Amino acid sequence: MQKHIYFDSDEGALYLLDQTLLPAQEEFVSCKTYHEAVEAIKTMVVRGAPAIGVTAAWACLLALMEYVDKNDWTQLLEKALDEIENARPTAVNARWAVEHMRQTWHSTGSLDPDILVRVWRSEAATLQRSDVASCKEMGRHGAELVQDGWTIMTHCNAGALATAGYGTALGVIRAAFEAGKNIKVIANETRPLLQGARLTAYELHSDGIPVTVACDNACASLMRRGMVQMVVVGADRIAANGDTANKIGTYGVAALSRGHGIPFYVAAPLSTFDINAKTGDDIPIESRSADEVAFIGEKRIMPEGVSAFNFAFDVTPAPFISGIITEKGVLYPPYIDSIAKAMAR
Amino acid sequence: MQKHIYFDSDEGALYLLDQTLLPAQEEFVSCKTYHEAVEAIKTMVVRGAPAIGVTAAWACLLALMEYVDKNDWTQLLEKALDEIENARPTAVNARWAVEHMRQTWHSTGSLDPDILVRVWRSEAATLQRSDVASCKEMGRHGAELVQDGWTIMTHCNAGALATAGYGTALGVIRAAFEAGKNIKVIANETRPLLQGARLTAYELHSDGIPVTVACDNACASLMRRGMVQMVVVGADRIAANGDTANKIGTYGVAALSRGHGIPFYVAAPLSTFDINAKTGDDIPIESRSADEVAFIGEKRIMPEGVSAFNFAFDVTPAPFISGIITEKGVLYPPYIDSIAKAMAR
Repeated sequence: MQKHIYFDSDEGALYLLDQTLLPAQEEFVSCKTYHEAVEAIKTMVVRGAPAIGVTAAWACLLALMEYVDKNDWTQLLEKALDEIENARPTAVNARWAVEHMRQTWHSTGSLDPDILVRVWRSEAATLQRSDVASCKEMGRHGAELVQDGWTIMTHCNAGALATAGYGTALGVIRAAFEAGKNIKVIANETRPLLQGARLTAYELHSDGIPVTVACDNACASLMRRGMVQMVVVGADRIAANGDTANKIGTYGVAALSRGHGIPFYVAAPLSTFDINAKTGDDIPIESRSADEVAFIGEKRIMPEGVSAFNFAFDVTPAPFISGIITEKGVLYPPYIDSIAKAMAR
Repeated sequence: MQKHIYFDSDEGALYLLDQTLLPAQEEFVSCKTYHEAVEAIKTMVVRGAPAIGVTAAWACLLALMEYVDKNDWTQLLEKALDEIENARPTAVNARWAVEHMRQTWHSTGSLDPDILVRVWRSEAATLQRSDVASCKEMGRHGAELVQDGWTIMTHCNAGALATAGYGTALGVIRAAFEAGKNIKVIANETRPLLQGARLTAYELHSDGIPVTVACDNACASLMRRGMVQMVVVGADRIAANGDTANKIGTYGVAALSRGHGIPFYVAAPLSTFDINAKTGDDIPIESRSADEVAFIGEKRIMPEGVSAFNFAFDVTPAPFISGIITEKGVLYPPYIDSIAKAMAR
């Protein structure tokens, strides 16, 4: 797959592949201001926790470039950083990335914004590269869990498009496939925005990995038919005890996996862990517009006057998770210990 | 709600409200031949096990009227009846209705097809009326299980549109509402054909019963949030041991209900029971075109070249079912006994 997030230094613009239009159209959105980048995150032109993190880092640079000639650039910049890290509430990676940029800024001790532009440009590029490297490490660790002949179910899109490249959950699948394992994938379509049907199917099919789409409600039946040997999903935020926020529906898949004795794995970089959140109860869950459920394209699928729930995420309690695949290896219960140890390294 | 299935004797035509177009358009399809009625069942112009049963009874009459002047009308009719009862494989009510018509035919002992036309017209009308009466009885029994203040989740559409009127699962909800109980409903949208979002929301909203739609994958999260106190669904076929085939996704809802300690009820008339099926393994499950998943309206939601699973139904094992609400009362485990007793009465 082509690079879907890139910064053009000559133009001073961040380019994002518009994921709302895939797979029908491949169009890039250009962001010349940090505000445009924040809007792109909010409207899900770019989505997936690690991809939001990388976009947030570039958005910091865009904000700095906008304010570099202003006298009060430090105050303006601080305000912009607050806005960037809060573009969406559940994924913690934007906060992590902005915090990282902030530390770089303060540790340079420099009061010259032109120097900071150069530092941040290099830093954002490094974050983007290291996100891909993390995914490949996750893939290496996770692939060892995959047996030849298995069918792996995944939910939403935790692929190249959800990261800077390669993917978390799909990184595990890619690595197993590249290692020559004979695997198949079931992509849950993932209503309301259908990231599974649109994005996961698109990525895997492009790479020649056998993938079949299923409606979300077919999950239990496919499991009961013995058609699923493993589940692997991504994460938007993982609490200190292992409770994991991810796309709505993940918790249901996890609970049904347990009921059918199917191993359920989460794949996520350490930037997705939030040790300030003691449990899943401390993770804010974004509620989005009911129109995302009520309309598919231009077509309203329910009567006028009827509303819909649209919680964008749910929390899977740690006891439902067989293991968490990170760039530093696979973490196992008790997560309170294994997570603390991984974060301290 | 208006009558959505009616036979016009002057025209000799069966009229069916086209459920594929709801809620956007209210249009009737007219069937002047039994073949048109079979096509209407196959293409889901009419759907829902009891509604298919009633349609099948009228289709028998249409076939008879087509062949009434032929010398070999009995052979032609037998062939047509076979076709009608097998229009869709999972719902057993068409078979039940055709068998009922066949018995009426053979018990008259008449060889005059003109007499049989009159007998069958009356018989089909009686079946249609008694289906509504059954639903009201189910409602009366089921409403006693509903507590004031509860939110009830339902899956797919087991309403007036799925029956000759009033509904099975929605009959229980209507009866509880009419009894003055303060209830709310969550309608799972029910991909791929969205009968929950389109039909259940339409029926309940028309009747002033508070209803909110949710994507199928939100089910587990809504349960974990304590937002669901009871689940009630319909059925397409119930085996002698209580295993229940119903719209794909029902089994997942049942398994998640059990995990969250939420009572899960099935509402179905005795015509939905098939005591020749010992368990759910004996129930054939219809697999429909992948295009129903791949397209929403004209819009393809997944990449070209990628396929989708589309099992139209799943089987909920009896142990997941708290009770089965019938027109003769609520059946409880052990179902092998309670079902046999109800069928023998």
